[in-house]
Amino acid sequence: MVIIGEKINSSRKKVEEALKKRDSSYLISLAQKQKEAGADFIDVNCGTLFSEEKECMEWLVKTIQETMEVSLCIDSPSPEVLETGFQLHKGKAFLNSITGEKERVEKILPVIKKFHPFIIVLCMDEKGAPAEAQGRVEIARKVTEILTSHGVKEEDIFFDPIIRPISTESDAGRIALETISKIKEEIPGVKTVCGLSNVSYGLPLRPLLNATFLAMAMGKGLDGAILDPTEPRIQDVLCAGGALRGEDTYCLNYISAFRDGKLGKQWTK
Amino acid sequence: MVIIGEKINSSRKKVEEALKKRDSSYLISLAQKQKEAGADFIDVNCGTLFSEEKECMEWLVKTIQETMEVSLCIDSPSPEVLETGFQLHKGKAFLNSITGEKERVEKILPVIKKFHPFIIVLCMDEKGAPAEAQGRVEIARKVTEILTSHGVKEEDIFFDPIIRPISTESDAGRIALETISKIKEEIPGVKTVCGLSNVSYGLPLRPLLNATFLAMAMGKGLDGAILDPTEPRIQDVLCAGGALRGEDTYCLNYISAFRDGKLGKQWTK
Repeated sequence: MVIIGEKINSSRKKVEEALKKRDSSYLISLAQKQKEAGADFIDVNCGTLFSEEKECMEWLVKTIQETMEVSLCIDSPSPEVLETGFQLHKGKAFLNSITGEKERVEKILPVIKKFHPFIIVLCMDEKGAPAEAQGRVEIARKVTEILTSHGVKEEDIFFDPIIRPISTESDAGRIALETISKIKEEIPGVKTVCGLSNVSYGLPLRPLLNATFLAMAMGKGLDGAILDPTEPRIQDVLCAGGALRGEDTYCLNYISAFRDGKLGKQWTK
Repeated sequence: MVIIGEKINSSRKKVEEALKKRDSSYLISLAQKQKEAGADFIDVNCGTLFSEEKECMEWLVKTIQETMEVSLCIDSPSPEVLETGFQLHKGKAFLNSITGEKERVEKILPVIKKFHPFIIVLCMDEKGAPAEAQGRVEIARKVTEILTSHGVKEEDIFFDPIIRPISTESDAGRIALETISKIKEEIPGVKTVCGLSNVSYGLPLRPLLNATFLAMAMGKGLDGAILDPTEPRIQDVLCAGGALRGEDTYCLNYISAFRDGKLGKQWTK
C-alpha cells in the first residue's frame, strides 16, 4: 500500500493560516508526524489561496524538501501550479489529480511527459461521476488508453473510484468498492487509490467509518490511499490489513508494531 | 448479516466447567449478552464432553430456549448430536457444520430433510481444504448440487471458506477472501459465512485482526459470521460496515447506535 498523508491541505483552517503566514515550523511538523506514522508521500494542497496558490506551492515544496527527505503529492486542479511543484520537486512525485475530462487531460499531458509523476485519476468526466461502477470503469479505460498512448506506464496510473458521503448517498460505499474490484479485474495493469475521509462526512466517529472502509477497500486490492496516517484506527487497519491480505510474512511487521506500542491505541478525535 | 454468537463452546474452559456442572445461570447469561449485542443465533457446542455430548446438548438447547427467545446454531460433528439438538429446538436452527466429505454428507442428509436447518458447509473434503480458492469453490459447487438435489434451498446453504491462522500461513487471509468472492460470483444463490477468531490465533490484539478481517470479508459480500458480538471492535465494524456497504439507509442505524453509546468503545481483552 502506498500511503499519502492528507493533512497539509488548505481547506483545513489551521493549515490555511500557516500557509498564509508561511509558518514553516507548523507545516514541517505536520509532514514529519505523517512520515513517522508511515506516509510514503505527503500531499500538499494550497487550493484555497487562489491567486497566491502557485507562489505558495513553490514555497511549500521547497520548504518541506529542504528540511526532510520525503516525496510529495502535488495537489491542485491547475496545470500551472502542478508544473511549478514538479519543477522544484526532488524525486518522483504524485500528481493529484486529473479526471477523464478530455480538455483537462490534454492540458496536463505536456507536464506529465516532462516529469513522469505517479498520476491520480478521478473516475469522472465532463458529466461528473457515473452513478454506477461500470461507467466509472469505462472512464478509467479511456484515460488509460490516452495516457499509455503518450508513453505513461500503466503502473504509474492510480484510479480513484470516487467516494461520496454515505450520510447522503447510502450506496456510495458499495459503488466505490465495486469500482475498485472492476478496475482490478478489467484493467489489471493499473492501480487504485482512494481518498478516505469523504466517505464519513457528516457522521459521528469518522475515524471508525474511515478505518472500516479502508479495510473493506484493502480486501478488494486497493493499492494506495490518501488518509491521515496519524489516526490510531487507521494505523491499526493498515498494519492488520496488510497481514490479513498476505503482505506480512509470518506477521513479523504486525508483531513488531505491537511490541513498539503502535497498535491498539484509542482514537484521538 | 446473520450474526452467530460463538461464546458457548466447550473448548473454552469456563464454558466446559459450566456445562459439566449444568450451571444454567452462567450459560444463559452468555447467551443473553450475545443476543443483546446483536446475535441472531447462539452457537451451542459441547464437543469436548465426548461421551456426554448428546445428553449435554439436550440439556443446553432446552435450558436456553426455556429461558429466552432465541434461535440456536447446533454445533457438532456428530449427526446424532445434531439430530438431538434439532428435535428439541423451536424454530429454524443453524447446523454447524458439514464438509464436502461424501460419507458425512450422506449421513446427515436424513436429519437435514427432516428439520430444514440453515446449513454451514466447510469448504473442505476427504483431502482437507484445498490450498487455493478455486479448489474450495469446486467443493462448494459439488455440495450445492447434492443438497439441492435433495430439496435444500440454495439460500439455506452457507459456505465457510475456511480461514487458517495467518501467524503460520501468511496467505490464509487472502485465500479465504478470494474464496468468498468466487463463491458469490460463481454460485450466486448460496450464502457465505465465516468463523472469525481462527484467523488471529497466536497473535497479539486478536480483536483488531478479527475486526479488520470482518470488514474485509463484509466488503466481499459476506452474508454471516460466527463471532463474539460483545467485542467492541466487532460491534463497531458490524455497524460501520453495514452502513458502508449500503445496508443502512441514511445511516440511521449507525447514528442511533452512536447515540446509544454502543460505538467506539475500546476492546475488553
